[in-house]
Amino acid sequence: MKNDLYFDIDIHKSLFRKILAERDSVGYYNLPSQKLNKLNKFVENFDKEYPDIKNIIVIGIGGSSLGTRAIYKFLVSSKELKRKMYFLESTDPSELQDLIKHIDIKNSHFLMVSKSGNTIETISIFKYIYSLLNQDSKYFSFITEKKSKLHKFAKSIGSKSMFIPKNVGGRFSVLSNIGLVPLALVGIDIKNILEGAKRMEVSFFNDGYIKNILLKKATHIANNYNTYNINTIFTYSESLKYFCEWYVQLWGESLGKKQNHSSLNVGLTPIGLIGPKDQHSFLQLIVEGIRNKSVTFIMVDDFKLKLDIPNISLKYLEELDIVNGVAFNTLINKQAKATLQSLKEIKIPLDVITLPHIDELHIGELIYYYELLTSSVGILLDVNTYNQPGVEDGKIILKGMLQN
Amino acid sequence: MKNDLYFDIDIHKSLFRKILAERDSVGYYNLPSQKLNKLNKFVENFDKEYPDIKNIIVIGIGGSSLGTRAIYKFLVSSKELKRKMYFLESTDPSELQDLIKHIDIKNSHFLMVSKSGNTIETISIFKYIYSLLNQDSKYFSFITEKKSKLHKFAKSIGSKSMFIPKNVGGRFSVLSNIGLVPLALVGIDIKNILEGAKRMEVSFFNDGYIKNILLKKATHIANNYNTYNINTIFTYSESLKYFCEWYVQLWGESLGKKQNHSSLNVGLTPIGLIGPKDQHSFLQLIVEGIRNKSVTFIMVDDFKLKLDIPNISLKYLEELDIVNGVAFNTLINKQAKATLQSLKEIKIPLDVITLPHIDELHIGELIYYYELLTSSVGILLDVNTYNQPGVEDGKIILKGMLQN
Repeated sequence: MKNDLYFDIDIHKSLFRKILAERDSVGYYNLPSQKLNKLNKFVENFDKEYPDIKNIIVIGIGGSSLGTRAIYKFLVSSKELKRKMYFLESTDPSELQDLIKHIDIKNSHFLMVSKSGNTIETISIFKYIYSLLNQDSKYFSFITEKKSKLHKFAKSIGSKSMFIPKNVGGRFSVLSNIGLVPLALVGIDIKNILEGAKRMEVSFFNDGYIKNILLKKATHIANNYNTYNINTIFTYSESLKYFCEWYVQLWGESLGKKQNHSSLNVGLTPIGLIGPKDQHSFLQLIVEGIRNKSVTFIMVDDFKLKLDIPNISLKYLEELDIVNGVAFNTLINKQAKATLQSLKEIKIPLDVITLPHIDELHIGELIYYYELLTSSVGILLDVNTYNQPGVEDGKIILKGMLQN
Repeated sequence: MKNDLYFDIDIHKSLFRKILAERDSVGYYNLPSQKLNKLNKFVENFDKEYPDIKNIIVIGIGGSSLGTRAIYKFLVSSKELKRKMYFLESTDPSELQDLIKHIDIKNSHFLMVSKSGNTIETISIFKYIYSLLNQDSKYFSFITEKKSKLHKFAKSIGSKSMFIPKNVGGRFSVLSNIGLVPLALVGIDIKNILEGAKRMEVSFFNDGYIKNILLKKATHIANNYNTYNINTIFTYSESLKYFCEWYVQLWGESLGKKQNHSSLNVGLTPIGLIGPKDQHSFLQLIVEGIRNKSVTFIMVDDFKLKLDIPNISLKYLEELDIVNGVAFNTLINKQAKATLQSLKEIKIPLDVITLPHIDELHIGELIYYYELLTSSVGILLDVNTYNQPGVEDGKIILKGMLQN
């Protein structure tokens, strides 16, 4: 991928050193180099044991599903996959009901994904599905921490578990078993995803193309966090819709914190936009609203799929013949460039990420790039990027309500 | 619907008078009382002429599709409808291709929706579909302004058009033919939608329940727009997912403006969240990030659908038996209340909207309520709520690019 910055800034001096300092203790950094032996064996056995399973259903919420879905949805339109993937994450009864109506659960295998193992939404949904399937353990596998009670439970019913390293946080876990197991089971090439992430890792840590770009961008975002408090990504591909959701969690939950050395609330607000649709929705606010937003365009250079706008002229609408014979792929990228140009003219802080193709390699790069960027900004904002103490209070209140 | 505010404030004195002053010239205010004769006839003829049509496909972008989709998606899980609805709005070739693979276009009728009639995305997609169907006009109807060139074109190929009043802006148009025609064609009770909107209109303009609440809320939002510049809605029903998207356009595009009597950029940033999922994503930022966000909870009191969490105890996970026998409906609302409580404790500006049911009446109320709220805040921010000059520049640049 390419990343063009439309601003310049001196990189924060100690930033790279501080990233190196946390590299060993924060687990996600090293996921691109993990061994896949166990995972490959799990998938191989699965294919042998369950040749008729058509659907992989992930039961998980937040970090247990957002990254997996981002990658799956990015790739699903451009590949023939061997199985379909679905997600159960909400306690909304309609959503549960809709999925069960829509698919054959007996042709499905359910992956219970919960790092801690006691996520209330996930366990509630599990109980529902488990009882629907007469508590037959063959429909279920588990992805959790080795020491969790969920793993103990899985063992007690004779189901298999795959593990997540303790030092990999939920929202940084998509390149661990949390994402890789379901993705591999539907036939996505996870080796190439890791290869892409590895490329980004090498480029960043070994003085490659991305190092200075990423450090500059992080410095620019952190230095201006009071002025440009909202960081929008404006993607020009529907395939990146769920990447936006993953980004929102990663950015919001990692950086919205009390500072380590003060009690000051800091943080940056993430917003994901999809073009050209959101040109007809959010763009006006970027252009004429309060100037508190930076914009990162994410474009796909080559969609592979070639669809041309037919060369027909509509009576009375001849002024729109300018689109005749243009490929949709070309049109959407011209729309991105026109919007970029219009924002450049009014001096919105901008950068552009270009993915050459929709494939495993480039989503691997993009994911790891955003993880590195989040870590870098977290260091500069002086927050603990990897915890989420702010959500505990609501959980305690809920438990109290349920006990009464 | 009910709306509980967790703050108090003196209503801006001239606000109600100013709303009354624009009521006659701004078309959307009076949509709840429109006559449906023409529309009913259109739908009746359609059902006779096309008894076999299974899908209604809206080709439209921004205000031409967001509201329709918001209402359709709100209702679709809770009703048996006579047809399905789909949307074509992006120039992303994959999305176009996916829909065409997925449905039988010969069993479909396409509604071309464009107020101006020369929206580049909409015309491009139309050309593609039109040519796919051998330029057979029977597959198409049009919703546009009476004076648009698109209407002239429709006439020239012998297709029917339904019209939008000139003084109803795109993002305020869902209760005009733009939303009502497609909704009626799939079997949604549009009379009840308008009845709900009418109820809200009467309650607001005739000194009913909502008047002071809405005026207080608008005043609170506008007075604090510098401090609380981000207005999140936190809906606890998946059915409101696309309502959030409609809200984002309505709020962002209406209020992000240069002030009428200065050149100051003002505006408020809308964010739509869905619980409980976004408790695992965005909530941390609300709790510990910069205190620049207000939160409106939107809950559905009774989902109708009763699904209980089974009364089974999982070995080692007995601490989660607290959910046993609880209805999912109850759980999701307790989650909303627990989150609300946790935000109350840290003094985030809050209010709660409660919809008794998922039905036409209450979505009509909610839509009209948000339109009134947007108009009210627009008056207080001293902006032109109904235009969008900021997006023109990008369109001009695009046309230039396409001409070369």
